[in-house]
Amino acid sequence: MWLVGARGSVATTVIAGCAAVAAGLHPPTGMVTETAPFDGVPLPPLSALVFGGHDTTSYPLPKRAEELAAGGVLPYGLPHAVRAELAAADEAVRPGGPLPGDDREDRELVTAFTADLRAFLRTHALDRAVVVNVASTEPAAGGERAAADDRFPPSSLYAHAALRAGCPYVNFTPSTGMHHPLLQQMAECSGLPYAGRDGKTGQTLLRSVLAPMFAQRALPVRAWSGTNLLGGGDGATLTDPAAAAAKNAGKARVLADNLGAAPPGEVHIDNVPALGDWKTAWDHVAFEGFLGNRMILQTVWQGCDSALAAPLVLDLVRLTAAAHAAGISGPLTPLGFYFKDPDGGPAALADQYAELLTFAHDLRTRR
Amino acid sequence: MWLVGARGSVATTVIAGCAAVAAGLHPPTGMVTETAPFDGVPLPPLSALVFGGHDTTSYPLPKRAEELAAGGVLPYGLPHAVRAELAAADEAVRPGGPLPGDDREDRELVTAFTADLRAFLRTHALDRAVVVNVASTEPAAGGERAAADDRFPPSSLYAHAALRAGCPYVNFTPSTGMHHPLLQQMAECSGLPYAGRDGKTGQTLLRSVLAPMFAQRALPVRAWSGTNLLGGGDGATLTDPAAAAAKNAGKARVLADNLGAAPPGEVHIDNVPALGDWKTAWDHVAFEGFLGNRMILQTVWQGCDSALAAPLVLDLVRLTAAAHAAGISGPLTPLGFYFKDPDGGPAALADQYAELLTFAHDLRTRR
Amino acid sequence: MWLVGARGSVATTVIAGCAAVAAGLHPPTGMVTETAPFDGVPLPPLSALVFGGHDTTSYPLPKRAEELAAGGVLPYGLPHAVRAELAAADEAVRPGGPLPGDDREDRELVTAFTADLRAFLRTHALDRAVVVNVASTEPAAGGERAAADDRFPPSSLYAHAALRAGCPYVNFTPSTGMHHPLLQQMAECSGLPYAGRDGKTGQTLLRSVLAPMFAQRALPVRAWSGTNLLGGGDGATLTDPAAAAAKNAGKARVLADNLGAAPPGEVHIDNVPALGDWKTAWDHVAFEGFLGNRMILQTVWQGCDSALAAPLVLDLVRLTAAAHAAGISGPLTPLGFYFKDPDGGPAALADQYAELLTFAHDLRTRR
Amino acid sequence: MWLVGARGSVATTVIAGCAAVAAGLHPPTGMVTETAPFDGVPLPPLSALVFGGHDTTSYPLPKRAEELAAGGVLPYGLPHAVRAELAAADEAVRPGGPLPGDDREDRELVTAFTADLRAFLRTHALDRAVVVNVASTEPAAGGERAAADDRFPPSSLYAHAALRAGCPYVNFTPSTGMHHPLLQQMAECSGLPYAGRDGKTGQTLLRSVLAPMFAQRALPVRAWSGTNLLGGGDGATLTDPAAAAAKNAGKARVLADNLGAAPPGEVHIDNVPALGDWKTAWDHVAFEGFLGNRMILQTVWQGCDSALAAPLVLDLVRLTAAAHAAGISGPLTPLGFYFKDPDGGPAALADQYAELLTFAHDLRTRR
Repeated sequence: MWLVGARGSVATTVIAGCAAVAAGLHPPTGMVTETAPFDGVPLPPLSALVFGGHDTTSYPLPKRAEELAAGGVLPYGLPHAVRAELAAADEAVRPGGPLPGDDREDRELVTAFTADLRAFLRTHALDRAVVVNVASTEPAAGGERAAADDRFPPSSLYAHAALRAGCPYVNFTPSTGMHHPLLQQMAECSGLPYAGRDGKTGQTLLRSVLAPMFAQRALPVRAWSGTNLLGGGDGATLTDPAAAAAKNAGKARVLADNLGAAPPGEVHIDNVPALGDWKTAWDHVAFEGFLGNRMILQTVWQGCDSALAAPLVLDLVRLTAAAHAAGISGPLTPLGFYFKDPDGGPAALADQYAELLTFAHDLRTRR
Repeated sequence: MWLVGARGSVATTVIAGCAAVAAGLHPPTGMVTETAPFDGVPLPPLSALVFGGHDTTSYPLPKRAEELAAGGVLPYGLPHAVRAELAAADEAVRPGGPLPGDDREDRELVTAFTADLRAFLRTHALDRAVVVNVASTEPAAGGERAAADDRFPPSSLYAHAALRAGCPYVNFTPSTGMHHPLLQQMAECSGLPYAGRDGKTGQTLLRSVLAPMFAQRALPVRAWSGTNLLGGGDGATLTDPAAAAAKNAGKARVLADNLGAAPPGEVHIDNVPALGDWKTAWDHVAFEGFLGNRMILQTVWQGCDSALAAPLVLDLVRLTAAAHAAGISGPLTPLGFYFKDPDGGPAALADQYAELLTFAHDLRTRR
Repeated sequence: MWLVGARGSVATTVIAGCAAVAAGLHPPTGMVTETAPFDGVPLPPLSALVFGGHDTTSYPLPKRAEELAAGGVLPYGLPHAVRAELAAADEAVRPGGPLPGDDREDRELVTAFTADLRAFLRTHALDRAVVVNVASTEPAAGGERAAADDRFPPSSLYAHAALRAGCPYVNFTPSTGMHHPLLQQMAECSGLPYAGRDGKTGQTLLRSVLAPMFAQRALPVRAWSGTNLLGGGDGATLTDPAAAAAKNAGKARVLADNLGAAPPGEVHIDNVPALGDWKTAWDHVAFEGFLGNRMILQTVWQGCDSALAAPLVLDLVRLTAAAHAAGISGPLTPLGFYFKDPDGGPAALADQYAELLTFAHDLRTRR
Repeated sequence: MWLVGARGSVATTVIAGCAAVAAGLHPPTGMVTETAPFDGVPLPPLSALVFGGHDTTSYPLPKRAEELAAGGVLPYGLPHAVRAELAAADEAVRPGGPLPGDDREDRELVTAFTADLRAFLRTHALDRAVVVNVASTEPAAGGERAAADDRFPPSSLYAHAALRAGCPYVNFTPSTGMHHPLLQQMAECSGLPYAGRDGKTGQTLLRSVLAPMFAQRALPVRAWSGTNLLGGGDGATLTDPAAAAAKNAGKARVLADNLGAAPPGEVHIDNVPALGDWKTAWDHVAFEGFLGNRMILQTVWQGCDSALAAPLVLDLVRLTAAAHAAGISGPLTPLGFYFKDPDGGPAALADQYAELLTFAHDLRTRR
């Protein structure tokens, strides 16, 4: 697994958690690939995964893990128990980019990232490396940078490098990644599988089961409003209106796809550093009942962002690796279960789950 | 449609609402049978429905409708607009029982109820009458009355009469109805379709989409707690612990069926007369994330009980009538979409919806 | 009582409600001046109040009242019961301004408004008229209009007219009103009492009791975030960021004054037309406990805006009239109980209530 | 400080937290006695406090502290940093009683407890020891035990011993303690100060500011319903209906005292072990607005029980010690700020705070 944003909270939780589960210290809570319907699917075992990645910070993974444990994200004592695995992953992290003041051109960055990936494959004698983007959300396309100099957003540089190195790719963020117009044809011809985008971990996960309920019961939603409070790095990133816009596009799409049209209603994303790595999402749904009766559903979701994301990242990398091994290429539509803004497929979680199980069955029988 | 509890809030809303929708005064909000997937299904049109029923009160339907309008349950002006239909239905209501001090035996009551049903069919020259129980919830079986004298609960008297009169039967409440052991064989041999029980209108509806989400995402639910605040008659009835127990059994079943086992957690039902016909349900779900992280989902559902129930009652009666016309008999498992405690079938709402659509398709093709 | 915005929801509720309470049809719920501590205070009786006002719409008050009753704001049947009072008030409404395309200068408008007030006093042979601003919120000062042409905001034109006509003035909105720098000296020299601004009806009312609780218990608030969902005219007005900014300034002030400094946290105001005249405010308070423990308080306030405002408007007008009769002039600091952004005085509701009672006592003893 | 229940979560947090604050490792968050208005009040400094107590368990305090840190109640690393203080306190804990199967009579137990207190005073050459009850809630008086054998509840045995040893007494729980009829006269004649009962840490704290708000704004509360979810020992204890009844009496009293009469509404206390030491309280307040409008306030309070209680226990012991030093005796009415069910005084938190500040001023000037 090659993590773009390898020293962030999500990546640290992925690496420490994978080691903990592989060692039997914790059950694989939240990993759908470890449930009964996935028995017999030829997925890489957790103990066989090797970690590396890119990051623009040099803050060591073991220290980051200590901080996450002090903040209650990782269990007390876990960083110590998996310190060897964290140190090994930390050694395999290479400098990302572009950094502020970096005068390398896009082409040079892609070449460097590609070389890093190839070295990782070679050094560890790997069959394949799945590149997964868990870095901070970028401003939405069409923002200043795009207009100013027509350069690739960083997420697309990494995606480009993945294609050049022959690596499957997963975009867990709303950033552009493989969706850049200049990469589309290259991706299609690459023979590689790829999946995205934007992991469905909280408010949107809920919306993907609640919106179908309203639709199936013929209860028109008159307004769907929401506020997200996020601490941690994600909260700070999303105070950039362009980054928040990128995130919100996915949230709105889930409603529009499930309800026929997006109902009125704002979505706010606020940076609340006091929450640390926790996030809170409040949703207020005004719906209409029989004879015009006004009714309300409110939901409050309180979870730890990294702990919600990490098992999904592990699932996605394992499934994408299995798809690659099975010779499947192109967008992995059956992984829509995991994403806010998937490459096609149904919009309701139940239907997405059914597609995921069919995909698992296919992988099992192709074996 | 023959309503047991014909002068209650739900029945009044059913009758007034059916007239309003049939006259084009309101759209059929909340009626699943009026959505696109039901086009072409041979359901009785709303304008063809005729109403009658049993009740132990003689308070007239038009007055009850006025009260519901003053309380905001029915739209301003609606009771006046549909006064003819309310008066007609009111005339067709016959005395229920047993009343306090009623010394008729069960056998006499069943005979009287059966005669009422036959007269209704004859007077209006009807093809069929579907009996639907929308009366207040009875105490759970095994309560005092059962022990004391081994008599049928009233809901089973009406169910018995339905069987004797050859009428299909729908139980929208948690009361015993057709589930009485002494009625089981008779029901099976009757050649009639029947459905139940306990309409899924609020907290349990939500649980039937949220519980599958936790299961599909491999997030173990550690506790699911809930409090319901109800005004109106239902709140008062459910202060009887035995009645509340009947109601709660259905709620718990939805969780157990979707999660594999019922998680710890109480469900409280409080009578709050200040809420009028509105109800509020608060749910608190403590679930576990990756590496043992503690996370919380809370939901607050605020709706008008009668307005939530009425379109489902109309749906059920139409579907049951169509089943009868098509010669289908026995428990209507594909109607589990509507019930807390259905006669078999899947537990997740999405799967129940799929079964309902298949049933609609069957009715359409049998035509 | 002279209402600026005399045909809006608040004014309609004030006029209809005053008539209903005066006639004994409803108790004076929400009117603090009708509670025991105000016995013997020389306030104008409700039955003695006469209504007039300015508005830019000509939509008649009786029709507006019908709409409010259909929407559940006014009780069923009330518009009919008080139709005479509504019609009388409607006749006393004069055209406000400036309207779009109005080429009158500020001076002309003030002259016209002053003449309207004098005519009202004369026609009804009144001792005094209290002018109260219940019109839609204006954009915050410093907005475009201010920059462009240095004209008075409309609220200040009406305030100016009140001063010229010798009328006490109450600003129930966050608009500028009497706070315009060019009116300050005139107000001080006028010998008139005035009060403002921005009625404390929901989220801020709650904050004015919760913030002192945290301060008194030495629990530091780390973030206070809030989202307001408003339908009705107010929701639409407040989608203008400048108007929302005006509203939010008051909300932030309550926290800063009670907590020593304003904690981090956004306040959002969303227009949700589906809510009609109802508003919902969600607040999320992240506070710190002993040894750095992270704790959370959330509140959800659901109320009808006009019904929350109307009794406070009646209180304020009565108290201001009594102050005028008693010869009190200048800003009425003891009325801070009613306002988000008062003219000095304490910030905690309990202290503001104590000041209000002292003021009532003063009025009683001055008699 | 002599803690009854010295090895429970609250006592452990008190001891570890006092050491941490005294050593400058943490600020005194939540300790009102460390805020500016208490400057110059002759309170015992935190560094001068010595801890002992009674408990029926022998599970060592340092181990308990480790568990609390693993559960996120105490900060990571704190048990290690204050291990000396925890060990010292642990050594000073004496066996409580009666244990199951204990055949000692009440008189013998009181004698033993008194001897323990005297030994503590002597060993550490203390000026005084304040006894504070932080043990699990006992069943409400009038329960089975009272009827069966007329024995003292354990909390009253400890209170009796405090009187005999000449120690001031604080009851932080709803248990009987000093309120036993057979202790009343002895307490009054003892010349000792005492305070209670039942610390106001969450739902009731909120109610003590919200209920006055409704009263001051003349908004009648039509129903006040609440559900408490508690893990930890307290949750388990309160599944005993008699213990829950004891707890609820205090909660209802706050509403009755502030609103004139207790509004309808249930309070539920559920044991939810999955919450650990955290508690969640949901309150739903149905109140009436102008012209009978129905409005709703809901609150959700999520906090760590021990962390909420500990700073209040430290405050109470310091204030009671200062009262004793100043020669004040009898019930300490000005400490009502801290209690659900105080010995007289006002019911609104703001008024209780004012009384507390007056008391602080008295202590300062008596010096």
